[in-house]
Formats: sequence, C-alpha cells, structure tokens
Amino acid sequence: MFIQQLIERLGSDKVSQNETELFRHSKDESFHEAVEPDVVCFPVSREDVEVIMKVAREYKVPVTAFGAGSGLEGQVVPIKKGISVNFEKMNTVVKFSPEDLTITVQPGMTRLQLNKLVNRHGLMFPIDPGADATIGGMVATNASGTTAVRYGSTRDQLLDLEVVLANGTVIHTGSHAKKSSSGYHLTGLFAGSEGTLGIITEITLRLHGIPEHTVAAKCTFDTPKACAEAAKAILQSGISVMRIELVDAESISQVNAYGGYTLPIKHSLFFEFAGTMSAVEEEVSLAEQLMRELGCENWDVARDSKERMELWKARHEMAYAYRHIKGMAITGADVCVPISRLPELIDYARELIHESGLIGGILGHVGDGNFHTLIVFDPKIPGEQEKAEYTNEALAIRAIEVGGTCTGEHGVGLGKMKFQEIEHGEAVVIMKQIKQLLDPEGLLNPGKIFTTD
Amino acid sequence: MFIQQLIERLGSDKVSQNETELFRHSKDESFHEAVEPDVVCFPVSREDVEVIMKVAREYKVPVTAFGAGSGLEGQVVPIKKGISVNFEKMNTVVKFSPEDLTITVQPGMTRLQLNKLVNRHGLMFPIDPGADATIGGMVATNASGTTAVRYGSTRDQLLDLEVVLANGTVIHTGSHAKKSSSGYHLTGLFAGSEGTLGIITEITLRLHGIPEHTVAAKCTFDTPKACAEAAKAILQSGISVMRIELVDAESISQVNAYGGYTLPIKHSLFFEFAGTMSAVEEEVSLAEQLMRELGCENWDVARDSKERMELWKARHEMAYAYRHIKGMAITGADVCVPISRLPELIDYARELIHESGLIGGILGHVGDGNFHTLIVFDPKIPGEQEKAEYTNEALAIRAIEVGGTCTGEHGVGLGKMKFQEIEHGEAVVIMKQIKQLLDPEGLLNPGKIFTTD
Repeated sequence: MFIQQLIERLGSDKVSQNETELFRHSKDESFHEAVEPDVVCFPVSREDVEVIMKVAREYKVPVTAFGAGSGLEGQVVPIKKGISVNFEKMNTVVKFSPEDLTITVQPGMTRLQLNKLVNRHGLMFPIDPGADATIGGMVATNASGTTAVRYGSTRDQLLDLEVVLANGTVIHTGSHAKKSSSGYHLTGLFAGSEGTLGIITEITLRLHGIPEHTVAAKCTFDTPKACAEAAKAILQSGISVMRIELVDAESISQVNAYGGYTLPIKHSLFFEFAGTMSAVEEEVSLAEQLMRELGCENWDVARDSKERMELWKARHEMAYAYRHIKGMAITGADVCVPISRLPELIDYARELIHESGLIGGILGHVGDGNFHTLIVFDPKIPGEQEKAEYTNEALAIRAIEVGGTCTGEHGVGLGKMKFQEIEHGEAVVIMKQIKQLLDPEGLLNPGKIFTTD
Repeated sequence: MFIQQLIERLGSDKVSQNETELFRHSKDESFHEAVEPDVVCFPVSREDVEVIMKVAREYKVPVTAFGAGSGLEGQVVPIKKGISVNFEKMNTVVKFSPEDLTITVQPGMTRLQLNKLVNRHGLMFPIDPGADATIGGMVATNASGTTAVRYGSTRDQLLDLEVVLANGTVIHTGSHAKKSSSGYHLTGLFAGSEGTLGIITEITLRLHGIPEHTVAAKCTFDTPKACAEAAKAILQSGISVMRIELVDAESISQVNAYGGYTLPIKHSLFFEFAGTMSAVEEEVSLAEQLMRELGCENWDVARDSKERMELWKARHEMAYAYRHIKGMAITGADVCVPISRLPELIDYARELIHESGLIGGILGHVGDGNFHTLIVFDPKIPGEQEKAEYTNEALAIRAIEVGGTCTGEHGVGLGKMKFQEIEHGEAVVIMKQIKQLLDPEGLLNPGKIFTTD
C-alpha cells in the first residue's frame, strides 16, 4: 500500500522492488546480517525526500538512508525493513565558492567525484576513509581516515546541513560563515547521528588548498608498541604530518601474499608529509632523525608521485588483502585512545588476537590514537565468530576504560550499540531523549546506535 | 528562604549577598542593562554546583553561571534574578597530560592562568578573545578571537565536558580520545549554549605546540574594502597565517589619541606568522609580495618579541581606546560572512556608521570573515542609542542575507536574540525544544538566546 503511494507520488522510475536492488540495499561491507528493505527509492531532489518522509509518516514505515554502502557497522541495514533511500541521483553541486573555500553538495556525491571537481581549482576535500564513500554517508557516520591527524573528522569540515526532519520540517543547521556563535550547534548534532535524527539533503563543506609538495616515507620497528611510541614521538615533536599509519607484520605478510609484494615482514609505519617545499623537507629530515634515534630500520623515502603511490599501495590494499581470504568473514575493532595509552592498547590487541587463535592484524591511524584489528574467521565453524567478536569487545572496553572510545571513525550502527552505555553513561539518556524528541514515532533508521523501545 | 537553604547546605563562606558582589554580578562589559542577582554562590566543587542546582529546583529559582564577566552580549546578566554562580574558586587543573596534548580544567580557570601553566611544557591553548576570560565562559559562548583563522573556535578545542543538568544528572559529553564517532555529539551542543542547557563543571581541551618562530607585520591600504580584498588574497594563497586583523583609519586615530601613538592614520592590516623558521620566512616574503602587488603602503615587519608586542600593542588597545571616551557608551556588531562577501559588508558598515552621524570604527578578524563595528553613543542624548543599535541591526541582517551570521564569536545573550529566527528559521523550533527537554522549568539562564515562554 505505501509502496503504491510512493510510486504514485514520486513516479515509478524512482521506486524499485527489483530483487537485485533489494539485495544491494540489505547490507554494507560488514559482517552484519543482511535484511532487505521492502522498497528502494531514488529521490532526485529534497522535495522527493519530503514526499518519502510524508508517506513514511502516513504508513508508519521505517526510512533508512543509503549512500555508497561502504559502511562497516551495518548503519544502512534496514533491520526493520521499510524504505531504503538511495541518494545516487542526488549527487550534484548546489553551489561552489572557490574563493570562500566552500562547496555545497547533495549527499549522494562521492568524495572522489567531489575531489575531481575541486582539485582543478587547487582545492581539496581532505577526508579519506579509504572507500569512495558518499559525502552524505561520511557526514552521517562522522567518517575520517588517514588524514584526520591533520584535518580532523568529517564533522570538522561542516558549515551547514539541510535536513528533512521526521515531522516534515526542513531546517538548515548552520550558515556559510567560517565560524558562528549563534544558536545551538545543531550541525554537530546531526553529523554522526547515522540517519536517526533526520535525512540530510544538502551539505556545505570547507575545502582546503592542495599542498604544494608531498613526500612519503616508511620505516619498520621490532614491535607494534615501538611503532606506537615512534608515532607519539612524531606528534610531540610538532611535525604536522599529513598521514601516519601503522601496519603490523602479520598484515604486511597478508598483503605481500595478496598483492605479490616483497615488503619486509616487520611492523611498519607509513608517513606522508605535505606543505611548502622547504617546510616539508625540514619535516622529513627531522622525522628521519627521530625515527633513527628510536631504532627504526628500512627508512625509505619517496618524492615523486609514482613512487609515493607505490610506497603507499600496500597500505591501501590492506583491508582487501584480509577480505579476500576465501570463504572467510572478517570483523574488527575501531578503538581510539589518548596517544599516551596507545602502546599498551596495541600490546593488548596483539595479546587478544594471539589468545583467539585466529588470523588477525593491526593497522591504524596512530596519529589520532585510532587503530583497527582485522580478525578473519570462518562463519561455518561454530565458535569462531564468537572468538573474533570477543577480541573486539575486550578491546573496546579497555579503550573506554583508559579514556578512549569504542569507535574512532566507523560509527555505532549495529556493531557498537552494546558499548554506548559503558562509554557514555548517563549521557545516553539525553541522547535517547533527543532521538525521541526528533523522531517520536521511531521512523528514522530504527534500531541503530541504541534501542529506544 | 532559598538563600537560607544555600547557606545551610553550602556554608556561609560560599554564599554572598554583599552589595559589591551583587553589583559585580549584575553586568558584563556590554551596555546591556544591569540586573542584580538575589545572591551569589562560590562553589568549590561539582558537588557544590549540584547542591545549588538542587536548591534552585526546590525553590524554582533561576541559576546563571558567571565567569570573568568579560562577555559582550549580557549572557551573565541575571535578568530574572535568582542565583549567580561564580566559578572563581573552581579554577584548578583536574588532569594535565602533556604527552596527549590535553588538559582537564575547572571552568573558572582563565586562559592566561591556563597558558602560564602549559607554556612551560612547550604547549599552548591558542584561543585569544582579547579579555582574560574564563575557560568556562569561553566554552559557553564558543568564543574565538584573533587566532581562530588558524585554530578555529573554542568549540573546536573540546574533547569532553562534565555538565550538571537542570534535573541534577551529571554527564560527560565526550571522551579523552582525539576523535570519536560514538553517540550523538553533545559536546558541540553544550558548547555555545550560554549556560541555558546545563552548568559546565569540567572541561577537557586539546592543546597545541608553541610554534618555534613568530613574525609580526603590518601594512596600510586606502580603503577598508582594499584591506578585505588583501585578506582574501592572503587566505587564497594558502598562507596559514596565525592572525590577520583589520583596523580602520577611524580606529587608528582613536588609538593614537588614547595611547599616544603616531601610527599612520590609514586602514591597516596586522599580521602574525608562526611556525618553523624557514616556513615562516617563506610566508612573510610571499605575503609582502602579495600585499605590494595589491598596492599596500607602510609594510613593516617585526621579528623579535619586544618589537612584535610593540607592533601589535595598538591593535590590542583598540577596544579600550573606544571604551574610554568619557561618559559615552559603546555598542557594536559581530557579523561573520563568507570571505567573498567581506569587502561589500565592510563597505556597507562604513556607510551605516556615516549615516548614523556617530563616531565609530571597524575592526576584526578578517581571516574568518568576522568583523566588529564599535559605535560610541551618549546614553544621555535621546535617540543616540537607537541610532547606534540601528547600525548593528542593519549590518546583522545584511550578514545573514549573504549567508553569514549575526554573531561570529560574542554569542547571542540578550543582544542577538532578535536575529535568531531570521538567521535560523525553523531550526529555532528545534533549539527551543531541546531547551525545553533539558530545562523544562526554565531555571538555567532564562531569557537568553531565545524566549521560551
């Protein structure tokens, strides 16, 4: 009945019950169980989104926003079925102001599409979560990635959001000014709310200048802990790295096997430095000196862009290397802790993986204190998934205990719900009340972040 | 009766009805009408704040938090009387982690106290609103100032807040991790809420390394608009300035008279560059070249710290120069607009001041598109205040029209309430609902930001 209404009010070309589409919208890249929506809508405008929301209210049907499906915590899985809203037809530029270093885009634009467009003006959107996620999805999960050490998370790039609320109201949460002290900061509230408070239909972002000069480097250490100590030393020296990534020896050996590389099978740090020519060269030489003092081996620098890509290629393929072990599933933690606690947390992660008896590696954005485990398990062997999940759980709880968070960048979705009360305590009550206030009927992505029943 | 309860439960040394104290807590540095509280409390701990909030609930008495009283929009004026809560006895460090570049402090610590403490570790809290405001006050108003062009606003420095809510619950809004995608972003919501959603009792901040090398510079142009164009050119060139300030000719002549300076009475840009030695020298020379191409005069560079202070002294004294015109009151705008619209807005401000027939100047943080007018009026002459306020109003409305905000850094308080609906539209409804949710009895700083009656 509501599907008929959607077809009538949107037109049949924007509504699909095709089995392939239902399947595509049942899951993301995680191991969370797939659930197909009843129907997928493809809005082309904010007005279409308003219509979808109106039908959802009239028929009390859940609405789940879908970007690229590259999430890792099941945020887009429509666990209570209903309408999946795919934004791939809302992927254009609303307003580009190169002189203000800002751009307003629709949520379905992906970060590579965006960069292709702004790069030719010497500008960039720097947040890089790896996957070619949509900007809407990145805002909804407050995504970050390898460059957060320098530019922060997606939330830090936002000036304004246009949001369609559950009750049909359309609001703007900010302005196009670089800063403001006017009113409550709703922009920050909607960012990271994973489609549970409203549907984002327009996003105004800060852009940044493309640095004139970039240099990549890597080196190895004997233990993951030594890598973490080295990362800490780099940050404390005041070097403003563009990226600083840890890849442990187990992961290096996986990627060697997957990609045919011959990287030294040791715990490795990957660096990127960017800025003006002389500043970068100063930083590279300071970093080399620091790393050598801490006993690094295999220091390697790449200056031209081909060499740089080569040097970082292994890092970029890491997640795929694990994902492509045949017939196996994968899970992993996303903890983020104060830098001073990073070495001990990484040690603990190694210990947990060892105890589980499973194949697993550690990699991460150690400049932020954020790292991931990647644990491979066979879903057909009873008990393996439980063992894998236990490592995630123990690590998340330890991270919270030392002042950190259960999720540095993937978001809560389905996977991190169980840690919300441990991490946020009484604040969860306030979060639930805000959810109740903005979505009293529980139509927006129900069953994510926390249960509201 | 409630005062008796406060004395009994807190002890008489933490409760004052002394006339001098009531007067001190009746106003801030703005022209907004003073209103004395019934009583001033001086908590020494979060537990004391909880007691105050409990008494307030029992007797339905308003509670207004008070920092240094250096605000400019009347946020601390207890317009419905009740309890003013002064945090000067809650000004200690809770936890300092130099290796994490973070510190947790009580809200009554001032930014100069904080910097004195962390500077010796090579670290700094960079936000500089001019006045020696308390950290609590800066968080509550999302203050910024001359360095926001590089470091953002106070909100951008926050990792966690401890907040006592109206209902007595104590929450933590974040963690000590550098980034997180867990739960709704309550930190951003409480920051800038001006004591209307809860009472902040602990603040965890990011710190930054003190740059190795700093250089100051200034130059002059023929029109304020030319200064704005020059600021825009600096930003677009990718030079990461530490500060870039506009002071118009009228203001230069005021400060010359006030401070006995002989600065060229021309529209001026003041710069600060900071970083590694070679990066800074590269930036200074690029900036000079750019400014000369745009026709600047009086380019002047100061390298050692005494010279730098001298060069910036006039800028720092500017607000006082106007404030000390005898018997006169002062008001001013705090607009912030996209950089591309800055030249026209500054032109419009000049026009409005001219039309008002009052003495007035323009100064501001032009790297953010944020600038202030300072309009001097005689409160004894009928109509002068109205004329002065008209210039603020017209400018705020124009700023909003071009995509900007009525307040870049001072906050809403009493002075910018009238623009909330114009600027935020339907979003104000959501803000009011959040206020209602967290403070259903309207006990927390009632009558600020918006009326909830």
